[in-house]
Amino acid sequence: MTTPITPITPTTPTTTPPAAPALASSMPRTQMGRSIIALEPAEPDPAGATFRGKLSADESQTYTSASPAQVEAACRLAWEAFDRGALADPRARAALLEGAASRLAVQGDALLSLASAETGLSLPRLSGERDRTVNQLRMFAAMVREGSWVEAIIERGNPARTPVPKPDLRRMLRPLGPVVVFGASNFPLAYSTAGGDTASALAAGCPVVIKGHPSHPGTGEMAAWALAHAARDAGLHPGVFSFLHAGGADEERLGAALVRHPCIRAGGFTGSPKGGLALAAIAASRPDPIPFFAEMGSVNPVAILPGALRARAKEIAGALAASVTLSAGQMCTCPGLVLYVAGDDADAGAFEQALREAMLALPVQPMLSERIGASWREGIAQRRSLAGVETVQGGEDRPGAPTLMLTTSARVREHHALSEECFGPSTVCARCESVGDLLRTLAVVKGSLTGTLWTQTDNAADAAAVLKALEAIAGRVLHAGVPTGVEVCPAMVHTGPLPASNRPDHTAVGSLAVRRWCRPVAYQNMPDELLPPELREKNPMGIERLIDGARTAPARPGANA
Amino acid sequence: MTTPITPITPTTPTTTPPAAPALASSMPRTQMGRSIIALEPAEPDPAGATFRGKLSADESQTYTSASPAQVEAACRLAWEAFDRGALADPRARAALLEGAASRLAVQGDALLSLASAETGLSLPRLSGERDRTVNQLRMFAAMVREGSWVEAIIERGNPARTPVPKPDLRRMLRPLGPVVVFGASNFPLAYSTAGGDTASALAAGCPVVIKGHPSHPGTGEMAAWALAHAARDAGLHPGVFSFLHAGGADEERLGAALVRHPCIRAGGFTGSPKGGLALAAIAASRPDPIPFFAEMGSVNPVAILPGALRARAKEIAGALAASVTLSAGQMCTCPGLVLYVAGDDADAGAFEQALREAMLALPVQPMLSERIGASWREGIAQRRSLAGVETVQGGEDRPGAPTLMLTTSARVREHHALSEECFGPSTVCARCESVGDLLRTLAVVKGSLTGTLWTQTDNAADAAAVLKALEAIAGRVLHAGVPTGVEVCPAMVHTGPLPASNRPDHTAVGSLAVRRWCRPVAYQNMPDELLPPELREKNPMGIERLIDGARTAPARPGANA
Repeated sequence: MTTPITPITPTTPTTTPPAAPALASSMPRTQMGRSIIALEPAEPDPAGATFRGKLSADESQTYTSASPAQVEAACRLAWEAFDRGALADPRARAALLEGAASRLAVQGDALLSLASAETGLSLPRLSGERDRTVNQLRMFAAMVREGSWVEAIIERGNPARTPVPKPDLRRMLRPLGPVVVFGASNFPLAYSTAGGDTASALAAGCPVVIKGHPSHPGTGEMAAWALAHAARDAGLHPGVFSFLHAGGADEERLGAALVRHPCIRAGGFTGSPKGGLALAAIAASRPDPIPFFAEMGSVNPVAILPGALRARAKEIAGALAASVTLSAGQMCTCPGLVLYVAGDDADAGAFEQALREAMLALPVQPMLSERIGASWREGIAQRRSLAGVETVQGGEDRPGAPTLMLTTSARVREHHALSEECFGPSTVCARCESVGDLLRTLAVVKGSLTGTLWTQTDNAADAAAVLKALEAIAGRVLHAGVPTGVEVCPAMVHTGPLPASNRPDHTAVGSLAVRRWCRPVAYQNMPDELLPPELREKNPMGIERLIDGARTAPARPGANA
Repeated sequence: MTTPITPITPTTPTTTPPAAPALASSMPRTQMGRSIIALEPAEPDPAGATFRGKLSADESQTYTSASPAQVEAACRLAWEAFDRGALADPRARAALLEGAASRLAVQGDALLSLASAETGLSLPRLSGERDRTVNQLRMFAAMVREGSWVEAIIERGNPARTPVPKPDLRRMLRPLGPVVVFGASNFPLAYSTAGGDTASALAAGCPVVIKGHPSHPGTGEMAAWALAHAARDAGLHPGVFSFLHAGGADEERLGAALVRHPCIRAGGFTGSPKGGLALAAIAASRPDPIPFFAEMGSVNPVAILPGALRARAKEIAGALAASVTLSAGQMCTCPGLVLYVAGDDADAGAFEQALREAMLALPVQPMLSERIGASWREGIAQRRSLAGVETVQGGEDRPGAPTLMLTTSARVREHHALSEECFGPSTVCARCESVGDLLRTLAVVKGSLTGTLWTQTDNAADAAAVLKALEAIAGRVLHAGVPTGVEVCPAMVHTGPLPASNRPDHTAVGSLAVRRWCRPVAYQNMPDELLPPELREKNPMGIERLIDGARTAPARPGANA
């Protein structure tokens, strides 16, 4: 976290922020196709790789990858904004987050139809995702105004202590600096430009540089304008936010350049293990390594014990089928492996039949992109080719067709592919001989975001053993439900061991996601006026603090509102 | 964090723990020289590398590096203990920590004289370190009994919420599993066998395997018995603690084997950047990477502004000289670089003269080992050979001689060695032309554990700018004092960017050090009886929790005591 030592050469004037253009609830299409450097639209680079994105069923738009000079400008201005304390005041951060939320909401149907044209996701699904994104921005704004997230701990000194005086020590979380965020293909709003990584990084006080996702460039650009306008409204240094288009032959180069840039101090990624691990390796191999939080692939195992299978076969089958195929199975939490122990063959057969019927009743849905559709078909074909794997519903012929494969626990232990994510609307269901057999099978499953247990009138020790095995490989364990649907709240844990994430110690969703962009700093015997306001004696920010071991509420709650 | 899948084959019976041997306040010397595998002394491996440690001025003892089979047994039994929940009950953990503290205290002078013989550190220094170690164990015990460190967050469900029901979500920190701890050469007690890493890992519920440090094997073995006896007293599974001797040709192999072992889930290290980074690389390159927390080299810059230099030259010089040479300068927080801005030449000359006199008045002290002494002499010779560096006191002729080198800020920017740690009783003092010059010089200083500011009647903006520059490279910043002396308390931050630590996001000292050994897990709609006690509705552990956004104190405080 050393200060980059090369001097900052701003490429736009920073003393007087440029005048804000007239606000449009959505940008006119004629202006689309530009990266946004420090709140200003950038001229497309004539040498940049171009790629196309749909605007509607009939229209499309050309986008151009940002140039190396634009990457440089975005990163340097982000550093300058951080260095000048542009986001130091929590009220400014809260105003930015709230402004972005309101502007995103105002973009209304224009945003949703563009996102639907680009991703094939349905309008109701995107409407829900937009609401989640707006609420997420507001949640972080409220968290910032409330203020206790900085974990202020104060230990007052005691000069009279023997044998040595006790120093006055005050500790809190401090922002790392500019953060690069890589948008996700499958969540054009909630995990992309104005999504959780961006919201939590801004909440922490870190400027953000977005690498837009080429599968929804227009949605990214619109969401970016919501943030850019909000930053202008709040009168912030323009370096606090930039959005860079990246696609075609330039995509990898641009991503790597952002992670390597000395002004970038952390990164967030949602996507494939291949991409995430490559970028994480770049982050780790810098002369000054930076934290990089990659959320990647997850098979989300489901374990069903015999009591639950017997009592609730049809209910479980229906819930699972819906969860497997939600948004064409393109959710990071879709259940891709179901392990069940049957009391007898009839129970197992009834469950399999119910699941087959439930899958059959579900429609074929479009997939996010041709590439993702092709990758899914390849994954299905690979699994179907394995001995002992029967495709009883769907298959690789049509992308987006609900697909059910039946196999046995022994095959799952034998073939790694059967316990790995196959991104799309399919699941592998494996009959287990016994709870012990299920446990042995879970032991080959790698890290996941979630693990699900269905139990009812089963042996308590069996249930506890299966839960323990699920907990060992997942950040969130759940009972009698489906893993899709990620609640954005303080108790959420959205992470898991590899390949689910490279950082199982931090959640990517929920208010504690803010911790990823911080490090603790302690101040010893520091004069009050040199302390960050959160640690000053009079508590001017009015935040809850831990003082000499006692939780101390502010004298004037909400002083920061 | 996947469960190691190879079956556990205990090498000692685990159903009936072996009977505890008679307690000795210190082990009789005839029994020394053995690793401790799962609370039992181990037979020295005839094929193991041997090395010697002093028992007193005249006597020495042979130690044998643990064998591969002993490494295997220690790790597998640690996993078995974890897997069977040996440390799941906070009361058991607290009893273990308190027992170890008492037994360490009872070892009394025998422990201190052995440590002094091995390290050359003085008895008063070691007595202070022992007290700190004992208090640290008790602090973690108290933290575990109080219980709120698990950060329990409960969000109650709302089945009536639209459009989707709100799930019940409960989140807390959970232990990672067995931890390997590498003892430090310079703190035979506080950062070694029964030191902060071990105490915090046990507090989290992680069994510990120690790799003893070959420069104080006897001290390590004695401290290990304090832990082993305490574990027996508490009736714990013997796998909760092992201590492995490691030295000579076997040291690197043994360390690497521990970090690679599938049963080991995290590691803690205090030592050189070379060793720490090599082990961290092994941890990161496992098929299932594990977190590895390495505390390494730190130059601990001191910045003195002109007002302070003029008003307090003699006081600052005296404090600095004592801090530079504390324990022969073999503290991770000794100030190795002093940057000062003088109002005029007379001020600078007076400060330099005062520092020289203060250093001259201090005794030559023994260094920890011949290797460390040689490495220090080499570092001094290297710095002295640089043009523009004047050695005005001490030098490399005698290890342990207080050594003062004077240079200028320009030289520091020119030669990296001048801003790097030179482990031993020396410091580099560099005159700066101005505050701007000092800031430019701080910009070449890499990560440190601490940064110190002296200011008095100086320009407020100057002081703020220097503090900001120090904060960018250090985990703890302090005013008008010396960085040596690390308070063990909740507000301490003992970490910093590389090379100070590879994990600037976690403190190695203080109660929050426990977080290193945990990851968060969320439980969704989980039946109460399947939840960890900390998250159950009735709060049987009586801990403070955050419930639906409100901090909720236990109905019965101290229920866990």
